[in-house]
Parts: sequence; structure tokens; C-alpha cells
Amino acid sequence: MKIKIENALILPMTTPEASYKGNLFIDDGKILSLKDIPFFKPDKIIDGTGHAVMPAFVNAHTHLAMVYMRNYKDTQADLFAWLNEIFPIEAKLVSSDLYAGSRLGLAEMIKSGTVTFADMYFFQDQTAKAVVEAGMKANIGFTFFGDLADSKKRVKELLPPLLPYLSDQIKINPAPHAIYTTTEESYRYAIDMAADYNTALNTHLSETKKEVEDCIKEHGTTPAFYMEKLGLFSKCSSILAHGVHLTDAELDMMSTADTSVVHNPSSNCKLGSGVAPVRKILSHNINLAIGTDGASSNNNLNLLKDVNLACLLASVSTGNPVELKPFEALKCATYGGAVALGREKESGTIEKGKDADLIMFDLDRPNTTPVNNIYSAIVYSADAGNIDTVMCRGKILMENSQLTTLDEKQIKKDAQKLWEDIKNR
Amino acid sequence: MKIKIENALILPMTTPEASYKGNLFIDDGKILSLKDIPFFKPDKIIDGTGHAVMPAFVNAHTHLAMVYMRNYKDTQADLFAWLNEIFPIEAKLVSSDLYAGSRLGLAEMIKSGTVTFADMYFFQDQTAKAVVEAGMKANIGFTFFGDLADSKKRVKELLPPLLPYLSDQIKINPAPHAIYTTTEESYRYAIDMAADYNTALNTHLSETKKEVEDCIKEHGTTPAFYMEKLGLFSKCSSILAHGVHLTDAELDMMSTADTSVVHNPSSNCKLGSGVAPVRKILSHNINLAIGTDGASSNNNLNLLKDVNLACLLASVSTGNPVELKPFEALKCATYGGAVALGREKESGTIEKGKDADLIMFDLDRPNTTPVNNIYSAIVYSADAGNIDTVMCRGKILMENSQLTTLDEKQIKKDAQKLWEDIKNR
Repeated sequence: MKIKIENALILPMTTPEASYKGNLFIDDGKILSLKDIPFFKPDKIIDGTGHAVMPAFVNAHTHLAMVYMRNYKDTQADLFAWLNEIFPIEAKLVSSDLYAGSRLGLAEMIKSGTVTFADMYFFQDQTAKAVVEAGMKANIGFTFFGDLADSKKRVKELLPPLLPYLSDQIKINPAPHAIYTTTEESYRYAIDMAADYNTALNTHLSETKKEVEDCIKEHGTTPAFYMEKLGLFSKCSSILAHGVHLTDAELDMMSTADTSVVHNPSSNCKLGSGVAPVRKILSHNINLAIGTDGASSNNNLNLLKDVNLACLLASVSTGNPVELKPFEALKCATYGGAVALGREKESGTIEKGKDADLIMFDLDRPNTTPVNNIYSAIVYSADAGNIDTVMCRGKILMENSQLTTLDEKQIKKDAQKLWEDIKNR
Repeated sequence: MKIKIENALILPMTTPEASYKGNLFIDDGKILSLKDIPFFKPDKIIDGTGHAVMPAFVNAHTHLAMVYMRNYKDTQADLFAWLNEIFPIEAKLVSSDLYAGSRLGLAEMIKSGTVTFADMYFFQDQTAKAVVEAGMKANIGFTFFGDLADSKKRVKELLPPLLPYLSDQIKINPAPHAIYTTTEESYRYAIDMAADYNTALNTHLSETKKEVEDCIKEHGTTPAFYMEKLGLFSKCSSILAHGVHLTDAELDMMSTADTSVVHNPSSNCKLGSGVAPVRKILSHNINLAIGTDGASSNNNLNLLKDVNLACLLASVSTGNPVELKPFEALKCATYGGAVALGREKESGTIEKGKDADLIMFDLDRPNTTPVNNIYSAIVYSADAGNIDTVMCRGKILMENSQLTTLDEKQIKKDAQKLWEDIKNR
């Protein structure tokens, strides 16, 4: 299908200065041209008047189907008291719950401008199925917990139903959960798997002070050096969620590796984990992406909120009002995410030949009048309500703020009903 | 007019447990009853199915017409470089700019659930006029800068056109800008004026470290003790915006005064000012309210974002995930604001006899499905897009997400046109 977006403010997100007022041409799911083309006969024209068009967001860390547990007993006195409420619920979840929960999460993500994400949960085939049906893209983390026997059991049971989904839309990343839940042998096994299949390893790393202290006690070193010892940085690429407590020495070591850190500011705030050193990460030439984390520690999947918070936290934690500029944060949430997910050749910027993964912000609203700096306007003034059009691979997933590939009403109903059921199981 | 809101989740915000599913009865602009009434014949029924109803937000600190300068040159290297861009623009503003800018700000506030606010800017009669026309309420700060002669000149020129607006809708607070822009004599003059008219004094206090350091140098003590020396806490009530760097000794001293601190988390983050000690303020029995500050240092007037950020910052700055609970933060943004503005008898909670200042959240959206804890859902999952109905004194200001008292399209057009003009003056 040939699509022309007319009269918009186009933000390619390659450089701040690349923005222009004009048209964008899409053909067969790809960006055909940023320049006007003679004799282009669009099948569809989208009026971009008063809108900004930018690459869709890439949510580089989430646990999609945790949407069920958003705001669930989250006013417990501390993290562990809360986890004690969550774990028994998760133990009750069955495969079909994951499908319905994933669909609910996808609806929320599309409505807030995300079309690509890195997930880490279980019954992964159900999430993959939901993603393909929604017309989105995902890097599905194949999660490991526990020791080598546990990991091998998971591979035997959960990997076969997931494998058929492998495609341009669905990639798989071995995803050992965290160093405090997964043994050294399981990590080594996952690292080898990532290396063998030439894909990134996705894991939580250096999220809390306690994790770092326990790692030093148990492994004699800090989390990133422990990972280095297991061969992570030499054998495969990696997606490291959180990175709140990464030290300068760890960042120096990581600066030559093919690794990405995923900043999850809402979750890190909400759980009191701390503030990741985003400027240091960037100045070490380490790719920085942004994630929402699961909806039970955020408690939403709206990446724009995390982009906003990333800038605000960077300023307040350093005292420098421009520590992380809006353009940089938006770049982390688009191109940075694409790099983390190994998708930078297909998405993350608006460039000829890339997938048409696009979102449109309606700027003709009180909260974005006047616009002035467009990147500040998106990060500091806009919210998800300004996003009215979302496209993935040239397919429209939302138009006039209405979902097109997902039946929102049915999805909410199904998830609500299942959640009542899950709690009573 | 008699209004019945049916089948809603009503959150009176008196205590967390006061919430109930049912109906709410409004008559002649006031809350008539939280309990069902026989023979009530409503002129209008609002279907509250899938909605939560709570008191409208009170934005306890803003500079309304600064909306023109949202995202304007805000990626300057530091605060003072940015202020050097803002001050010359402000100097060009004329009375009619203030009216149009105020209207734009009011549209944004209604759309994000605020119907009452404390303002501090100039050409105050223009803001008052816009507020009355919109059907809202405001405490208009009558701003002082400079020395006593400047202050008296302002009173002579700007107060007469403002005075006719004094009413239930419009209160006036003497508002010396800050200790670094306003002399001791001007403060004394403003304090006496507040005392004489039995109204609160509104001022910025203890926003930045530099302000505190300079105050110690110039006045030999910290900002709140300097205010005490001038008689602020003994002579009148007060609304103190920011309070980021208030010391324990200052809080001890303030705990017996009739004073409110207004937390402005977005602005304090964005400008790198720091994080106000919200738990300490509350535990000193000092009233805490929440504000957006002006749209040029936020860059929006959406108080819900600040409520969310207040909770997140409280957690991350202390490491305690429940340092400021969602209910508490919402209470600060409603009842706390009402107390600060001297309006707690008329608003801030849903109680019989109070004004029907109400907002309705549509919870039947992906981002609030399931709801689980309602206060967490509003603070952490919802955004302004969930607010579809807003009422002030029983008058509907927004219904089905459409403004009813303001012509949004015209307002945006007028403000945009004026802003182009202002920049070129």
C-alpha cells in the first residue's frame, strides 16, 4: 500500500536539525522517501496538519502480561512484602491468561505510541501470537530462572511452541532473569545460546543496592564484572535492564562491548531503587534505551512518561537542567531501543528503506500550544493523548485514536474477567 | 440545577476507606448528598459507569499566562541563560496578551482536572476575567517585585482593575515574588496587607540552594527564619511555593504557623532545584499542596503529572517505595490545595454542603484495566486522557472530553497568533 503523510512536521530523529515541514512517502510498509516524489499515487493520504511524525517508540524492557497486577497491593510497606503478594498470583497464571494479558498490554502500548518492545515473561508463545495478530514487533525474552536443570526443562517445554513465531516481527532473546534468581550455570547456558543463535542476551542487571552487595558477597565482584567473568561481553551482545548501580569501572569495561543498558526510570523510582547514571552511560559510548518495566512496578506501559521522567530525573539528580536533553531522551526511546533489540537497520529513525514504524502527535491541543521547541514539547508538554495515529511496518494500528488491529472493548472485558478468575483460583 | 451522578466509584477523599460505589447528588452547585435520596428529580443524570469521581484538583502554584513560553529556549545550558531569554519576552507582554494566555492555560487545566488554582503573574484583572468566564475559581496573587516604591506603584496601577472581581470565585493574595527580587520593605508591606485583609500571603520560598546561601549572606539566616523575622508567620497565613531546601529547624518553627508549602516536583526537577522533603513537611503537621509552577518550567499545567511525580520522587529520594502513598498525594492535590487557598470549607473533598467541584476518570481504558487499588490507578496508571468530565460549583466545564465554557479552537488560534506577534515585537 502506498501512503502519503501530508503537511506534517517530520522528525526523522537522526539529528535534531533533520526535522522538516512537509510530506513523507511510504510504500509496501517501508519509508520510500522523505523528499517529494513526482507521480506518486497514494492509496491513502493522511493529513498531517498540526501533527508531528516521529519514529514509533521502542519499549526496551517490559513484562507485558503483568498488566493484571497493576496497582495490585502496591502500597505494601516494602518491596519484598509486595513481591510476596505478586509471586503467588503469578504461580496461578496459565497459558491463556498470558494471551489475554498480552493483548491488554499491547492495546495500552499502541495507544501510547509503542510498536516494538523487548519482553521477559513466560508462556512466551502466547505473547508472540498476540504481537503478530496486533501487527507489532517484539523481542521475546526466553526467560530462565533457577539452575541448569530448571533452564533445560524450560527450553524443552516452552521453546518449541515459541519457535514457529520467529520472523521479522518476532525475535527471541535468551533471558536469564537476574543474578539473584538464576545460577551461574544457567547464565553460561543462556550466554552460549545467545552466541550460537547470534542474538542478544536480555537480563536484569544492577537494579538495586542489595543486588550489588549480595553479588559482591557471593561472587566477589560487582554484577557487570560477574557477567564479564561468565563471558557475556565477549561472547554475545546484551540488553541489560536497569543498570542503576553500574560503577565507573564497570562502564569502562562495558564501553568496548556490544551491549545496551535499558533505563527504567518509573520503576526505579517507584521501587526506590535509585537513578541510573544516564549521562555516564552515554559518555562511555554505551547504547542507552528506555523501558517501562512491567505494569506492576510502574504502573503503566506508557513509554512517553518514562522519557519525560528520564529527563526530569537526570536534571534533579545532577542539578544540571539540561543533563539529558529532550532530543537525546527521545532518541534513546526510538533509535536506542532499536539498537538494543538489534533492529536498528529496520527501525528507530525515519530513513529511506526502513520500516514505516511511525507515530503522529496532534500538536493542536492546549497542552502543546504554542509548540516552540518540538522535542521539549513532546517530552515535557505532550502526553499519550496527543498521539492519535500509530503505524507499524506501514500498517495502521491506530487512527483517530481508535485501535484498528485490536478489539479494545473485547480485550478489556476478557482481561477483566480473567483477572477476577485468577484472584479466586 | 439538580444533577445525579449514577453508578460511579465515588472517592470523597476524606479517608481512603470513604470510597463507595453508587450515586452522588448535586443541587444548586453544592453537594447535596452522598446517600440516596427519595424523590430526587434530577435535571441531569450523568452515567458514572466505569468512572471514578473525585474532588477536582487544586493547583496551588502557577504562573498561568506563561503558557506562551512553554518549551521556549529551554535547552539553554543553565537556568540563568534561560531566564535571560524569558525576561525580555515578559517585558513585551501587554494586558490583552494576559487574557488570551490565561484562557489557554485554563483550557489546559480543565482538560487535566484542575478547576481552582493559585496564580502569581501580572495584569491580574485579565486572568480574573478569564477565570470568571470559564466558570472556575482562582486565588490571584497580587505580585510585588522590587522595593517599596515599586510595590506601591503596582498597587496603584494594577489593584484597582482587579478589585471588582473579588467574589467566591476570585480571591486575592498579596504575592511578593521572592526574597531575591523583592526587598524587606516590600515584604513587610505585603505581609501587612495580607493581615489587614485577612488573606494569605503567597510567595516563592527556599526554591534553590543559591537562594538559601544568598539569604544567609544577606540576612544572616535561612529563608523561612528571615520570613519569621519579618512577621510572616505571626501576622498572616501563607502559601510558600517550593520549600525544597527547608531545614528541620525551619519546619519546627513553621509547625505552629498557619502556613502551607506547595510542592512543585516537575519544575523542581526540570530546573535541577532539588526534591522537597515532603514526608518531613507532613510529619510537622504543615499543610502540603501541589502545584505545576508555570508552563515554562514544567512545561505543562497538568497537575496529575505532578501528583505522579511527587510519589515517584518521594520513593526514589528516600529509598522507601511507600514514602508518599497515592492517597496522600491525591489528598495534597485536592484538600491540601483547598487548605492552602483558604477554600477548605468549600472544596477539596466530596462532603455534603461543599461546592460540586468534581472530576470523573474513565477507568474503562486499557491503561486502567484492571483498576485494583483505585488511588494507585489514578496516580500511577491514569493520565489526563482518562478525565472526561469536569465540574466547578456544579457547572459542567468539560463533558465527553469537550470543553463547554471555553471555545478551545478559538483560544488556541488567538494565543498562537499573539505569540507570533509577541516574539516579533
